[in-house]
Amino acid sequence: MSLRISEIFGPTVQGEGALIGEPTVFVRSGGCDFRCSWCDSPHAVDSDYRHDWTPMKAETVWAEVQRLSGGQPLTVSLSGGNPAIQDFAPLIALGKEHGYGFACETQGSIAKPWFSDLDMLILSPKPPSSGELMDWGQFDACLAARPTRTVLKIVIFDGADFDWAREVADHYPDLPLYLQPGNPNSDPKEPIDLDETTGRLEWLIDTTLNARWFRPRILPQLHVLVWGNKRGV
Amino acid sequence: MSLRISEIFGPTVQGEGALIGEPTVFVRSGGCDFRCSWCDSPHAVDSDYRHDWTPMKAETVWAEVQRLSGGQPLTVSLSGGNPAIQDFAPLIALGKEHGYGFACETQGSIAKPWFSDLDMLILSPKPPSSGELMDWGQFDACLAARPTRTVLKIVIFDGADFDWAREVADHYPDLPLYLQPGNPNSDPKEPIDLDETTGRLEWLIDTTLNARWFRPRILPQLHVLVWGNKRGV
Repeated sequence: MSLRISEIFGPTVQGEGALIGEPTVFVRSGGCDFRCSWCDSPHAVDSDYRHDWTPMKAETVWAEVQRLSGGQPLTVSLSGGNPAIQDFAPLIALGKEHGYGFACETQGSIAKPWFSDLDMLILSPKPPSSGELMDWGQFDACLAARPTRTVLKIVIFDGADFDWAREVADHYPDLPLYLQPGNPNSDPKEPIDLDETTGRLEWLIDTTLNARWFRPRILPQLHVLVWGNKRGV
Repeated sequence: MSLRISEIFGPTVQGEGALIGEPTVFVRSGGCDFRCSWCDSPHAVDSDYRHDWTPMKAETVWAEVQRLSGGQPLTVSLSGGNPAIQDFAPLIALGKEHGYGFACETQGSIAKPWFSDLDMLILSPKPPSSGELMDWGQFDACLAARPTRTVLKIVIFDGADFDWAREVADHYPDLPLYLQPGNPNSDPKEPIDLDETTGRLEWLIDTTLNARWFRPRILPQLHVLVWGNKRGV
């Protein structure tokens, strides 16, 4: 069975969340069950781009990961779109045989048995500003898969998102928690405004610490600071 | 016995290394046994500033940490200067009683028994560009203290530092490793050049990944990106 792949790129460093700064090859799958209003990867989500998604066998994806990494084990990040709409078990099995690690980022709307093979599952439930609604039954099913580590990452655009994040986090007190400011200007053709980008991080830091909420780590999108909205880095 | 304290500030987020993004109150001690050529905290190192260092009892430091954090437990980072020239055991004992966590960053030139009480010891050996020489016997004595976690963080200014970091890291294969580009322009009175700062990070990412060295995490000084060289944040 084929995987629908939007892009494979790296090695670069992970720009977000628990693995920030970690050398990584990204396997970005095509297709998503959500349509977040501010999605920063529409080329892997919107059906208008589906002719750009390549059907690839797990073996072909794995050969490309090996080529890019020169056969040196590193972390492979399964992203999207929502990688959980496809079956990554064969790719993970191939990579783990050769000492590679696997992380997967998903909104937590679909639980897959292969989550249990992951070194890290990053659950990124979508806040109110996305325009999407979470199904917490499915989210809990994702948690039940028990990979080596599971973490929670929430993108925050505004005060309503922040309040929502706090409620969600309280409901999952044992998960390491990462907050990240939203990026409303993710057009790869437009340069980013570094001051505005760091300003949004500063707002989130201030909002969180003024509330004396000391549980979350608060992190930027490092790749946006370094490379703007350029793709493939 | 008094502690010599340069500044106590926060809550803010940790800007560097393994705890990047973590809500933190900083206790910066005054005095250092090193004189790194590019030191970014001369106000806590150079004897010219020693009249700015306040002698404080551990109880007084602890009261200030509690005031700043509103009595909500968080991570306290002992930095400097070199905090290892002083006795932080009483402060750590007070904080831990109240559920606070403690991290300490030091170059690894002096080992202290209280290292074993830390939640995280960040050993930051100084590369050739610093003009200092490491005493590896002392460094190994720091490692022997066995806090809950020990990590290695190395600042890189140039190719010679990079080669040196690789040798040092190979000598300590079991320690989580963080690389960070140097900041040659740390004068708090001067604005930073964001493009130049992210450019130095990009150089370090490229150098590390082109060498297919996938072990280290590569991270910026987040506080410099957000607040420039301003003190007390």
